[in-house]
Amino acid sequence: MALPVTPISPPLKDELDIVIPTIRSLDFLEMWRPFFQPYHLIIIQDGDPTKTIRVPDGFDYELYNRNDINRIMGPKANCISFKDSACRCFGFLISKKKYIFTIDDDCFVAKDPSGKDINALEQHIKNLLTPSTPFFFNTLYDPYREGTDFVRGYPFSLREGVPTAISHGLWLNIPDYDAPTQLVKPLERNTSSCRYVDMVMTIPKGSLFPMCGMNLGFNRELIGPAIYFGLMGDGQPISRYDDMWAGWCVKVVCDHLGLGVKTGLPYIWHSKASNPFVNLKKEYSGIYWQEEIIPFFQSVSFPEECKTAQECYIELSKQVKEKLVHIDPYFEKLGDAMVTWIEAWDEFNPAPNATA
Amino acid sequence: MALPVTPISPPLKDELDIVIPTIRSLDFLEMWRPFFQPYHLIIIQDGDPTKTIRVPDGFDYELYNRNDINRIMGPKANCISFKDSACRCFGFLISKKKYIFTIDDDCFVAKDPSGKDINALEQHIKNLLTPSTPFFFNTLYDPYREGTDFVRGYPFSLREGVPTAISHGLWLNIPDYDAPTQLVKPLERNTSSCRYVDMVMTIPKGSLFPMCGMNLGFNRELIGPAIYFGLMGDGQPISRYDDMWAGWCVKVVCDHLGLGVKTGLPYIWHSKASNPFVNLKKEYSGIYWQEEIIPFFQSVSFPEECKTAQECYIELSKQVKEKLVHIDPYFEKLGDAMVTWIEAWDEFNPAPNATA
Repeated sequence: MALPVTPISPPLKDELDIVIPTIRSLDFLEMWRPFFQPYHLIIIQDGDPTKTIRVPDGFDYELYNRNDINRIMGPKANCISFKDSACRCFGFLISKKKYIFTIDDDCFVAKDPSGKDINALEQHIKNLLTPSTPFFFNTLYDPYREGTDFVRGYPFSLREGVPTAISHGLWLNIPDYDAPTQLVKPLERNTSSCRYVDMVMTIPKGSLFPMCGMNLGFNRELIGPAIYFGLMGDGQPISRYDDMWAGWCVKVVCDHLGLGVKTGLPYIWHSKASNPFVNLKKEYSGIYWQEEIIPFFQSVSFPEECKTAQECYIELSKQVKEKLVHIDPYFEKLGDAMVTWIEAWDEFNPAPNATA
Repeated sequence: MALPVTPISPPLKDELDIVIPTIRSLDFLEMWRPFFQPYHLIIIQDGDPTKTIRVPDGFDYELYNRNDINRIMGPKANCISFKDSACRCFGFLISKKKYIFTIDDDCFVAKDPSGKDINALEQHIKNLLTPSTPFFFNTLYDPYREGTDFVRGYPFSLREGVPTAISHGLWLNIPDYDAPTQLVKPLERNTSSCRYVDMVMTIPKGSLFPMCGMNLGFNRELIGPAIYFGLMGDGQPISRYDDMWAGWCVKVVCDHLGLGVKTGLPYIWHSKASNPFVNLKKEYSGIYWQEEIIPFFQSVSFPEECKTAQECYIELSKQVKEKLVHIDPYFEKLGDAMVTWIEAWDEFNPAPNATA
């Protein structure tokens, strides 16, 4: 007689929401069913709100279209992008959970080199629940991973690490390239047999990185207010820089607050490259502007008084308006939207002991 | 009929020396023969100079013992450590080549996960001959490696990279742990099936790392004067921090000069762990001192006028004497030795157009 199976509750089942910007195919959730079904989904339907998104049976989800966002946020809805995957940050705002995992609907379950399905969510949770080491580089990478540790010469006082705010996962098959690189290298692929890097690491303090929103986990309580995807898409002069903007902002805020950003595992399978010609049109302002934006972020500093992600983000909005507006008037509008975002954050996420 | 084989000259054959601090077994060179035989070896015999080191036939080498070092350097020989693998830096000093690869004699040829012998030297050369990217993190790691590139959001103005000064390789089998970790985890091993990370990356600007001297390549012309292994072993209060010291110094100098430091591949097979009890005795001052040394290096800055590795290193020696001597009088002696080292460097490596 078989022994009764004790059901194992998946990690962080009641503390994590999965946020998905639009779902164009039923296959997506069917493929992820073994991993996602225990969790709550927040689906942000982008574009035409009269269309219907079908969600397969058995999933626990909320679905919001543009009409819902406008109704729920009122005038503050103007900080949420339309016709761009940046709309996903509405899900970050209204979640009530401690952790978020966000993934694009063209990302499927990848296989590790042994052919086993990769449980991306489980790896993000491991990354988020173990500390980061931003103050000194460990040459064997994440020292908290099983089978490894801090190497000789790593200061003992730094081995406790700091809380991890972000877990940035990577992509097999189609790498996340910009339009010019897509055009030049249309056939380049990341395959699990030759480009699978079995590693997680902390991005050192002081170093910026290109954060991709396709496969991203974060601690919403620690850093949520700094993960705003900006004004992109419909009515804006720029697109495909939503996650980059969030990444630049969140890294300088994490560095100031002493929080960690990890990158590496888990991989997802990125199924298809978007059209490089369309992408070029969306990106070209960003490609040009980032040459000034990056030095700005490399020199950002926060006053001692900024102790929370909100406080840092408001301070950052001021510096954006002051130091980037000469590039384009868009940055004035973006700086205002950053403030609106924080106002909305505080409205939907009141501090536990705040009174109305 | 077989076609005649065209002999292929190995890369950098006439531009690279292999420096080995002592050789205790003939097996070492026999195992590396297919890879090392085309190159010139500089062997620094540590300890008793009356003993004889046997080198198998067919290798092109110079061998120096302590008597040779004293004769060649005169009074300046006091900056070269005795009874410690730090003596290897004498080889860096007297080499006339552009590149150095240094390796310990307990490091053997490792196998990659497919079972193939790893040509460590070839990978170091690849690392050194391609640029580094210290100013912005690339989430797909070394963008110059075949099959990969810069990801979306990487500033185009930074894609040229900077010259690579250091290639820091890793170890399978016995990881490079300090004595306390060795004592706590005596059985931990890096195996090619589970801890092989197929990756090279640039350590970002501003981040220090624990540089291990077991498996290390560098561009001697660019950074040689900053790779001094300090005063260790016989007559000194500290040991097993020779490579760490060099690593801290070289990283701040590289950051100032805009040079790159890569880590990751290649792996060697580290055959045996040294005795953790002996190591603890050698390390304990360093373990304690590094808690103050690291913050010192994290705050080091150089004046604009320091344009060469020598100039940076002399400036660093002043700061060491000024800011570390309160830890122990040893740092006064070390600061003096750093100056002697640079004097010796300039003596043995006169600038091309310098007159005597």
